Amino acid sequence: MEKTAEPGTRDAVAALLLERRGDYVSGGDISRRLNLSRAAVWKHVAALREAGFAIDAATNRGYRLTAWPDAYMAPVIAGLLTTRDLGRHLHVKGETVSTNADAHALARAGALHGTAVIADTQTGGRGRRGRAWFSEPGMGLCMSLVLRPPIEPSLAPRYTIATALGLRRVLLGLDASAELKWPNDVLCGGKKIAGILLELIATMEAVDALIVGIGVNINQESFPADIANIATSVALATGCEQERNGFAAALLNALEPVYDLCPSEAGFATLLAEYREGLSTLGEQVQVAGVNERYEGVARDVDAQGRLILELESGESVTLHSGDVTLRPEK
Amino acid sequence: MEKTAEPGTRDAVAALLLERRGDYVSGGDISRRLNLSRAAVWKHVAALREAGFAIDAATNRGYRLTAWPDAYMAPVIAGLLTTRDLGRHLHVKGETVSTNADAHALARAGALHGTAVIADTQTGGRGRRGRAWFSEPGMGLCMSLVLRPPIEPSLAPRYTIATALGLRRVLLGLDASAELKWPNDVLCGGKKIAGILLELIATMEAVDALIVGIGVNINQESFPADIANIATSVALATGCEQERNGFAAALLNALEPVYDLCPSEAGFATLLAEYREGLSTLGEQVQVAGVNERYEGVARDVDAQGRLILELESGESVTLHSGDVTLRPEK
Repeated sequence: MEKTAEPGTRDAVAALLLERRGDYVSGGDISRRLNLSRAAVWKHVAALREAGFAIDAATNRGYRLTAWPDAYMAPVIAGLLTTRDLGRHLHVKGETVSTNADAHALARAGALHGTAVIADTQTGGRGRRGRAWFSEPGMGLCMSLVLRPPIEPSLAPRYTIATALGLRRVLLGLDASAELKWPNDVLCGGKKIAGILLELIATMEAVDALIVGIGVNINQESFPADIANIATSVALATGCEQERNGFAAALLNALEPVYDLCPSEAGFATLLAEYREGLSTLGEQVQVAGVNERYEGVARDVDAQGRLILELESGESVTLHSGDVTLRPEK
Repeated sequence: MEKTAEPGTRDAVAALLLERRGDYVSGGDISRRLNLSRAAVWKHVAALREAGFAIDAATNRGYRLTAWPDAYMAPVIAGLLTTRDLGRHLHVKGETVSTNADAHALARAGALHGTAVIADTQTGGRGRRGRAWFSEPGMGLCMSLVLRPPIEPSLAPRYTIATALGLRRVLLGLDASAELKWPNDVLCGGKKIAGILLELIATMEAVDALIVGIGVNINQESFPADIANIATSVALATGCEQERNGFAAALLNALEPVYDLCPSEAGFATLLAEYREGLSTLGEQVQVAGVNERYEGVARDVDAQGRLILELESGESVTLHSGDVTLRPEK
């Protein structure tokens, strides 16, 4: 039985070439591994080239993938994943209202731990407190994950910390800087490069699902005037345009081990030590604007629940679940 | 313009008779209030009788409603409500998988504060930790509410406390006893009469929606063997069969003022004082089984976040979000 027309065969060819990217894979190998005729392999390679994959062909050596489309494609991301669960159920969309809303619906429908929704742009993307999140087509990453950790709801904020840490690891790996701004932002040279919006579905005793929304500015070269002074992108920070499927996969690969450490006290303690290294405001005088109140003091630490410990001028400490942190203006 | 056939006119007649239940309302009054001909009024009354409403008619006095169907009906409950928001958007179902799941879906679709789902029975009803919740057709109340209080997620457990308190007020009003068992159960003579399952949809800083699931045993005369010793019903506790639409409306009427007090510290403090009066385990030696651990000690108090404060034998205190409380067996 020869497979030629089943859906997924072309994805399998793409995945195989991605797995061995940069190396030649012989037509015979592909043909054997996927149970395809040599002619079918050739047809799929032609179709992949049509779809934007750059595939060299050399006599006696076979096919070599050297580049792939920048548009998000599930088989491309899948071919670049090294994860156990994260991104293994992957929903890729061109445009959506909100990947967090999509992930929420998937979670309610029983989506497994690690399910990911990736979109090129969102028409109703939101940050904390309903703020708009700007997303330019073809430039960024809008991703939401469904996580099902065995934790009490009070430990949920750990996953914001962990997500920031995963983003930091990826950015440092690209030789960008990464300053963490508690609780939801990742900055680069003082400008925002990524944001996190964590949502919770839970009973009082157990988390049913966490929805981790992540927005990353990847290839933007400029921003609208109102955010131009406060936003940056990976491309601006590194001087290199990024391949977005690769970035998404690298982020998923970085997040899984970080998330795995969150449920245990000891595991989260190691994350927190690394988080503190990147936390730009530690020891600084800051203002924290909560929903209904405002505090000023020195940012002393982040605790085992991911909360900011702020030392007020009175010497008293307050522990904050969330808030907007700004460096206190000079007097 | 005369209304006769519009949907809702019969409900309006029912609501008017319910509002003035026990008293005669003249046909002329109904006709004027609802802009109907006398003949149309008569037709709606006939249809309501057909549907199980007991309506007397007396010459020169008009119509008097003396009884109504026991099956849950939105216009009947609506006619008995005195609330501002609670139950004002009401979804009544004969059977559903889970009213909490229905309410969750409504919440995600933007349902307003106070939206209620009421079902006669659930096929997949669940208590805490996925335990089955038994519901016999025609006997109980399965209700879930969508609440949108302006609170941080950490205050959500207050709404379990408040719900227990609302149930207690209704039961005391029917001359039943009501012992509150922190956190989720209401007992009567040591047997469970109602249970609460609170679910949360939230970001780290604000609650998007609370889903309050409430199961009440109302008219059961007996229970399956495995729960016969630990379950009771309002009918068994009071010796009187209850009209279930009336019970549902009374509960909604009782819950609204209680929920209104939850967001503020002072408001919740007054609720807590009343809750302590009904808390059967206060000052008792108890065992509390958490998801992963077990504690023994004296139940000392419930705090401003609705958590149980347990004094261990070591003298140390622990604060528990949730758990199964049992009186500690005699040694």
